[in-house]
Amino acid sequence: MAVLVVGSVALDTVTTPFGKREEALGGAATYFSCAASYFDSPRVVAVVGDDFPQQHIQTMRDRGVDLEGLEVQTGKTFRWEGKYGYDLNQRDTLSTNLNVFENFHPKLPDGYKNSEYVFLANIHPSLQLEVLDQVESPGFVACDTMNLWIETERDTLCELIKRVDAIVLNDSEARELTGEANLARAARVIQDMGCLKVVIKKGEHGCLFFSPHNHFSAPAYPLDSVLDPTGAGDAFAGGFMGYIAKTGKLDDRSVRRAIVYGSVLASFTVEQFSTDGIVGLAHEEIEARYKEFREITLFE
Amino acid sequence: MAVLVVGSVALDTVTTPFGKREEALGGAATYFSCAASYFDSPRVVAVVGDDFPQQHIQTMRDRGVDLEGLEVQTGKTFRWEGKYGYDLNQRDTLSTNLNVFENFHPKLPDGYKNSEYVFLANIHPSLQLEVLDQVESPGFVACDTMNLWIETERDTLCELIKRVDAIVLNDSEARELTGEANLARAARVIQDMGCLKVVIKKGEHGCLFFSPHNHFSAPAYPLDSVLDPTGAGDAFAGGFMGYIAKTGKLDDRSVRRAIVYGSVLASFTVEQFSTDGIVGLAHEEIEARYKEFREITLFE
Repeated sequence: MAVLVVGSVALDTVTTPFGKREEALGGAATYFSCAASYFDSPRVVAVVGDDFPQQHIQTMRDRGVDLEGLEVQTGKTFRWEGKYGYDLNQRDTLSTNLNVFENFHPKLPDGYKNSEYVFLANIHPSLQLEVLDQVESPGFVACDTMNLWIETERDTLCELIKRVDAIVLNDSEARELTGEANLARAARVIQDMGCLKVVIKKGEHGCLFFSPHNHFSAPAYPLDSVLDPTGAGDAFAGGFMGYIAKTGKLDDRSVRRAIVYGSVLASFTVEQFSTDGIVGLAHEEIEARYKEFREITLFE
Repeated sequence: MAVLVVGSVALDTVTTPFGKREEALGGAATYFSCAASYFDSPRVVAVVGDDFPQQHIQTMRDRGVDLEGLEVQTGKTFRWEGKYGYDLNQRDTLSTNLNVFENFHPKLPDGYKNSEYVFLANIHPSLQLEVLDQVESPGFVACDTMNLWIETERDTLCELIKRVDAIVLNDSEARELTGEANLARAARVIQDMGCLKVVIKKGEHGCLFFSPHNHFSAPAYPLDSVLDPTGAGDAFAGGFMGYIAKTGKLDDRSVRRAIVYGSVLASFTVEQFSTDGIVGLAHEEIEARYKEFREITLFE
């Protein structure tokens, strides 16, 4: 069953200690859909300007991404510029130009309204709600968010959290949202807000999953070389939701597998700049890395 | 086979957001030996002053710790005072009074010289070497260290690292020792220095183990309530070495189990102040938590 994602499609200029890429394919919906495309034909709701390079459209099409919901507006595409130091967990945003994204109101093509699986990537929570209102009867909805919305749009965000089945956020966001330093307690506060499945991403430390009677700890892949961490969280969400959409299963055992597939896609993402690491994978590579995730965690 | 530990036995004054304990039983060798005592009868080489409370001696004796190597010198016991904020990963040392520890030169009782398993807790690397020189033919030696020795005693520390089988250190120490931000690379640099088994502790994020053909990622236990993080790393080492000493096995499968037992003991440690969490455990509690560690990491 098809998974729908709403979020940014952007042109990213990224500098890391290992190089620089200018105006590369980026954006949360981009990373999400490329990662999810290994399991499903993801549907993208987003907007770009008329300057958005055709080659980027082609890259996503080649991955089987459904772009019927990608609006092209007169004007410039959303641009983000960031820089990472040697501690790749820390990044500085050098500039954010929303451009056509500034007045974006997502409108679902009719063919998208029956989407069973929905991922609301990090955009203004009122836009996330607008999308959710347009989906007829979603079976499983997950969202992401960021510190900006936690600080400035808490009420709307809380309304959203009540309506989603899962939230995927990073550790600092979980702490800021709940006022709890302890992540197990933070997860419980979020569950009390109305969202029962909580995925807390911890970057190089892997991620934690909490559901009412289940706790799962997934490791990070011990990468020797991280070139560009951009998009790892969105690729994680894409692998996670893509696998769930493919299997249609939401029991804890399946969700654990989905989390590991998400971690696999995130690990491939950061090994290269932009989406380079996740547009040309063979399924065998994904399965081999999944197996490695098992091997690094097994004990008797 | 008996495990020997050299390190501090101290009186700790600790403040956390959840309370304060004054002159409580502390020190690396103390936490280590209490944790190891669930698997073995650990031998302690350390020094205290004549002010060291008899009740603390009794606490350790009750755990089956062999204190023949605990010197009592005229003077005051080593005292440490620290404070934790709500982020329990960060601590401020308020004072360190070495007292009788200042001129300590560890001397092994004759009965300790045949120790098969040796843990050199965090003390000056030249003292760690002095101890190692007194053990006749140790089968497995592990050490800890700290930023101070990395910065001021690098040559001696490197000499030590060449001579040990395993090093147990935290992530920031691994990075500082090697100049590598990436922990997988940092571990390889340490292996190149001559120590093939590297355990990197990451506090609330669990720990990583690297041997030449093996990588293992152990989660942290999702504790709801951490009262006092002091001693967690030493209790980890105690559980780890104690289990190895008990089984006498050093294959990767056994080492993984040892790491999880270490994590179990560390998790009990931080749930209470001082050594309170690890002096009255039933073996069933340890096994139950070990099983929980398996459950939070399993996927198919």
